[in-house]
Amino acid sequence: MFKPVAVRRIERADSSTIGALGEMGVATVHEAQGRVGLLKPYMRPIYPRARVAGSAVTILAQPGDNWMVHVAIELCEPGDVLVVGCTADNTDGMFGDLLATSCQAHGIRALVIDAGVRDVADLTEMGFPVWSRAISAKGTVKETLGAVNVPVVCAGQLVNPGDVVVADDDGVVVVERPRAAAVLDKARARTSNEANKRERLANKEKGLDMYDMRGRLEQAGLVYVDSIDDL
Amino acid sequence: MFKPVAVRRIERADSSTIGALGEMGVATVHEAQGRVGLLKPYMRPIYPRARVAGSAVTILAQPGDNWMVHVAIELCEPGDVLVVGCTADNTDGMFGDLLATSCQAHGIRALVIDAGVRDVADLTEMGFPVWSRAISAKGTVKETLGAVNVPVVCAGQLVNPGDVVVADDDGVVVVERPRAAAVLDKARARTSNEANKRERLANKEKGLDMYDMRGRLEQAGLVYVDSIDDL
Amino acid sequence: MFKPVAVRRIERADSSTIGALGEMGVATVHEAQGRVGLLKPYMRPIYPRARVAGSAVTILAQPGDNWMVHVAIELCEPGDVLVVGCTADNTDGMFGDLLATSCQAHGIRALVIDAGVRDVADLTEMGFPVWSRAISAKGTVKETLGAVNVPVVCAGQLVNPGDVVVADDDGVVVVERPRAAAVLDKARARTSNEANKRERLANKEKGLDMYDMRGRLEQAGLVYVDSIDDL
Amino acid sequence: MFKPVAVRRIERADSSTIGALGEMGVATVHEAQGRVGLLKPYMRPIYPRARVAGSAVTILAQPGDNWMVHVAIELCEPGDVLVVGCTADNTDGMFGDLLATSCQAHGIRALVIDAGVRDVADLTEMGFPVWSRAISAKGTVKETLGAVNVPVVCAGQLVNPGDVVVADDDGVVVVERPRAAAVLDKARARTSNEANKRERLANKEKGLDMYDMRGRLEQAGLVYVDSIDDL
Amino acid sequence: MFKPVAVRRIERADSSTIGALGEMGVATVHEAQGRVGLLKPYMRPIYPRARVAGSAVTILAQPGDNWMVHVAIELCEPGDVLVVGCTADNTDGMFGDLLATSCQAHGIRALVIDAGVRDVADLTEMGFPVWSRAISAKGTVKETLGAVNVPVVCAGQLVNPGDVVVADDDGVVVVERPRAAAVLDKARARTSNEANKRERLANKEKGLDMYDMRGRLEQAGLVYVDSIDDL
Amino acid sequence: MFKPVAVRRIERADSSTIGALGEMGVATVHEAQGRVGLLKPYMRPIYPRARVAGSAVTILAQPGDNWMVHVAIELCEPGDVLVVGCTADNTDGMFGDLLATSCQAHGIRALVIDAGVRDVADLTEMGFPVWSRAISAKGTVKETLGAVNVPVVCAGQLVNPGDVVVADDDGVVVVERPRAAAVLDKARARTSNEANKRERLANKEKGLDMYDMRGRLEQAGLVYVDSIDDL
Repeated sequence: MFKPVAVRRIERADSSTIGALGEMGVATVHEAQGRVGLLKPYMRPIYPRARVAGSAVTILAQPGDNWMVHVAIELCEPGDVLVVGCTADNTDGMFGDLLATSCQAHGIRALVIDAGVRDVADLTEMGFPVWSRAISAKGTVKETLGAVNVPVVCAGQLVNPGDVVVADDDGVVVVERPRAAAVLDKARARTSNEANKRERLANKEKGLDMYDMRGRLEQAGLVYVDSIDDL
Repeated sequence: MFKPVAVRRIERADSSTIGALGEMGVATVHEAQGRVGLLKPYMRPIYPRARVAGSAVTILAQPGDNWMVHVAIELCEPGDVLVVGCTADNTDGMFGDLLATSCQAHGIRALVIDAGVRDVADLTEMGFPVWSRAISAKGTVKETLGAVNVPVVCAGQLVNPGDVVVADDDGVVVVERPRAAAVLDKARARTSNEANKRERLANKEKGLDMYDMRGRLEQAGLVYVDSIDDL
Repeated sequence: MFKPVAVRRIERADSSTIGALGEMGVATVHEAQGRVGLLKPYMRPIYPRARVAGSAVTILAQPGDNWMVHVAIELCEPGDVLVVGCTADNTDGMFGDLLATSCQAHGIRALVIDAGVRDVADLTEMGFPVWSRAISAKGTVKETLGAVNVPVVCAGQLVNPGDVVVADDDGVVVVERPRAAAVLDKARARTSNEANKRERLANKEKGLDMYDMRGRLEQAGLVYVDSIDDL
Repeated sequence: MFKPVAVRRIERADSSTIGALGEMGVATVHEAQGRVGLLKPYMRPIYPRARVAGSAVTILAQPGDNWMVHVAIELCEPGDVLVVGCTADNTDGMFGDLLATSCQAHGIRALVIDAGVRDVADLTEMGFPVWSRAISAKGTVKETLGAVNVPVVCAGQLVNPGDVVVADDDGVVVVERPRAAAVLDKARARTSNEANKRERLANKEKGLDMYDMRGRLEQAGLVYVDSIDDL
Repeated sequence: MFKPVAVRRIERADSSTIGALGEMGVATVHEAQGRVGLLKPYMRPIYPRARVAGSAVTILAQPGDNWMVHVAIELCEPGDVLVVGCTADNTDGMFGDLLATSCQAHGIRALVIDAGVRDVADLTEMGFPVWSRAISAKGTVKETLGAVNVPVVCAGQLVNPGDVVVADDDGVVVVERPRAAAVLDKARARTSNEANKRERLANKEKGLDMYDMRGRLEQAGLVYVDSIDDL
Repeated sequence: MFKPVAVRRIERADSSTIGALGEMGVATVHEAQGRVGLLKPYMRPIYPRARVAGSAVTILAQPGDNWMVHVAIELCEPGDVLVVGCTADNTDGMFGDLLATSCQAHGIRALVIDAGVRDVADLTEMGFPVWSRAISAKGTVKETLGAVNVPVVCAGQLVNPGDVVVADDDGVVVVERPRAAAVLDKARARTSNEANKRERLANKEKGLDMYDMRGRLEQAGLVYVDSIDDL
């Protein structure tokens, strides 16, 4: 049963953990936590090369209505990321340069919104990163209540307030707050492992050998032929 | 009943009004005229940071057929924008660098096409801006008549010949020609108002206070709780 | 009946022909071969201005499984382009910076994949071009066999191993290997013809005259009126 | 510039013309008027075999808001069809069994809505036909004004109040009111012509002969070969 | 962090409450709980007129892998509804007549799956209702673990094990288990209220009067004109 | 390089094999041949419960142009199925009741078309089954050549002339002609095996036991817990 509520206090992960997860990037963090937590790939950055991590302040919004964004900004701390889910599919431009100005003034790092955004030229110039499903000039009303800092589904992914949001060119991934440190450990292990692999591959070692795949491929039944005429 | 017709003379808005609307940008113009006139958000620019305004020379085209574009170019004046609607959904590349060369030679400012476009690397280098629903190398034939300078639906929006088309990174909006001056007045009022708001928000004034929302939120039933456990 | 097979030897087109086709670009090559061979326009480059041509090493992959990519890399020669079709629609990120490192080490020029790709910031920095249907951080498993160097359908287009793949900002086109030289001849004729047209159009000659369309338009029934009130 | 207006009086086509157009069906009417006027094919009936024709009472609605439907019903006459366009893409269920009850009480024949509809089991039982883009239980608010009996774009097609709407299993087509009689004449000619063709085709006459296509095919360059090995 | 887990015991709502919610139908239940809980409208029944309610046994599945469905069936009680969410968008036919046979043998009432289903002719004949995003003959493997009876996102909606799932021609709605009785009360109030409204509307009372909208419309600024020429 | 050609003679599979494959149904045939050959799931029947199998007469058509369908009908034998691929995505209604009348007169069993179809009420009454991507009243021209009985891609699947097409409520699958008998053998084995499984499952045997999955699940790491609180 829907409750129009705004929750003032949320728990956040340790800021150094958040920062370190951001450096790992989305693909690595996603792998490190067992391939869960990814928002659908229709969520795209409005400009290339943005990379952020922060604590989710979540917003459940009505389609075409950005009233709750104003409520949420007041409840943010520096380093937070706004995460907006909608009660129905929508592409209206619920966020523009005025809200971004307010966000930057309060130290909010980014917006992740399962709807549209506008003023993208201004947002790009300001360096305020946004991941959205659409770009649209269509403005919104402030008529119907939603909620702030309740669990929301954004682009197919459950996000709890205080979860760590990591976003870059590859998309957006969410890490459950209580597991952030553990995920970071796994991500670090993965990263150092990858550096080694990268060097070996750059030296022309084949993936088939490096990952020791030849036996498994044969066992699975892969047949090599010299020419397609041999089939 | 479909008539294959090309209309030679259309009325255009005042060129200074058109120029001023272009400076306002799509989001502002859309708001200023009461949130109508926007093309669907699948219409995207082929390169970032383009911004134009011009008088619509409209084209009703058959899918995969760009014959009418040639007819339309001859009927354009410098400062016009070609607006192409199709009789069925289509992504073929109906426009490329040769047509763009011809457009630039005649002072045509941009293309807005509810279909595909090709040679986008060349168009980008030439600085000829296009808003389209797709990029596709698929060329087109010149077999079936359409019409020029009749009312067309482009990306869900009715466009009359001579309407003012404004396009930027946020999309494309159409202003009915007879209302262009009035819309410009409202857009200007909006813009100066926004500058003031931007400054206040940058100084950490909250939207909740600046827009005086707290009373309305309470009246609508928004409940603040300290913690989600208080729900 | 599906066979998990990897074909070692494929025929390739002449490398100078391949190079020359790449210079022609996708739109010209597509026209030159009679408007066939184009992949669907949802295939987009991960960064602008990339342009490549190469011999297709084809991969039939299971959705969410990149095992066969490792098999394919070993079978490539410098100048090849990996072309991946999937047995079901999929957007998972089946290719990232490690595989790209391996590809570059072996002289592979590009990837064309009817699925997702990840690490796009890294791939952009490395200058390894990819045309894909999606960008997604979702990684993949190595569990189920596919095939390498068999005919595959990629983005709606049949690709045979050894076909010439040309890709740029306009998309991706495939030229059947045995016809590569003939297509190149037609593309060259087309290009020189276009240079002349471009100059005439830049000098304000109208397409209606250059293409001698006025008679055909009249015959087809196009009616010119001075004003829409004359209809 | 948007005006929240409801127009009381519209002109309608002759009721016998409307009825006769309905008997012709969508495909025939669409052909008869030169292949224009068709709504996009995503508009589908909620149950099979419905067939209606009526005068359009048009509604411009805000997404997720069905306030104007109530305004429109009062302005309808028996035999009218409600046609709803939205100011942004939306799938909410803006119409259900209560509104259908009211429509039937006032002799309204059908609903054509570029949004969602709900209570489809009830509507089917009542025999109230609807063509919509979606079925969705999501209800709507009554908060923001739109307009009634102004020109609207519905599913990509301009509809003027009083235009004749014809809908069946093949979709929805709109006939401009002033042309309804002329379109009916053409549709009738077409229909009688088709009966003759149907009989000839049923008697195994080939389309190639009946339409006298062989010469044109040869002229266009079609080559017959006995076997694909002859290519 | 993903855990491959199967939870044996879940709490369920009272069976009479579940049955009564099913009789209310999706649209009424959705309204009664404040317009939340609806799955996206792409979830459609495989045959018309099915209507069910039951307790959710939730499944988190890998795309193209139905291993966890087998695990879940063993954990069901009669009256349960299987609810399947996937870790990535997928349309493979993860469920067919064999699994449906097993489900019916164990008293499972229905399947709600954010993926594909197959053998739909058999399922229809058996009377086993399914709501899915696709119909596809593509079978699935049993290779990668997911989870059973953990919170899942299905078609954009969070579903907790034991929640009440109501599904009919209008789609699928989820009621949080602890609130099922309260939602039922509101739904009942709504339903009796609707019967009265239906009768009044059938007697030609206008919605404008029954809902007392005329004053609000005027206050909001709606203008009535006799003819469009009066604008 | 595109050749406008019509091939008169194709090889067909044995008619009893074709008939038997049709009885197996799409899902079984797809499994039997190793999960390949399936057209994308957007291909849907225009009415339920149709089931056919036949030899593919393939058509490569230009979007919005059904000229080649007429050419193909003459080249069909009784028992054939028309399979239409397009050179670009298209939903126009390229086939209606006149063509269906001609098809039935020549013993053609069905149409599979990666485009639209119209007159679906008539086609349903005639009992002429069609699998298509869309239903649309938009008619087509006869202007541009395609080809008949060449390999085509239809809904993402390569179809060679003479391949066996099987279609039912689950979609459409293609069996390579030379393998039809072998696929039938495997399909039969599968079917008899399924009957046994169905009976066991109906008798409440669990899939976990029947497929002997418990060991593999444990080995893969599935953990059972009594309650979610035990996590």
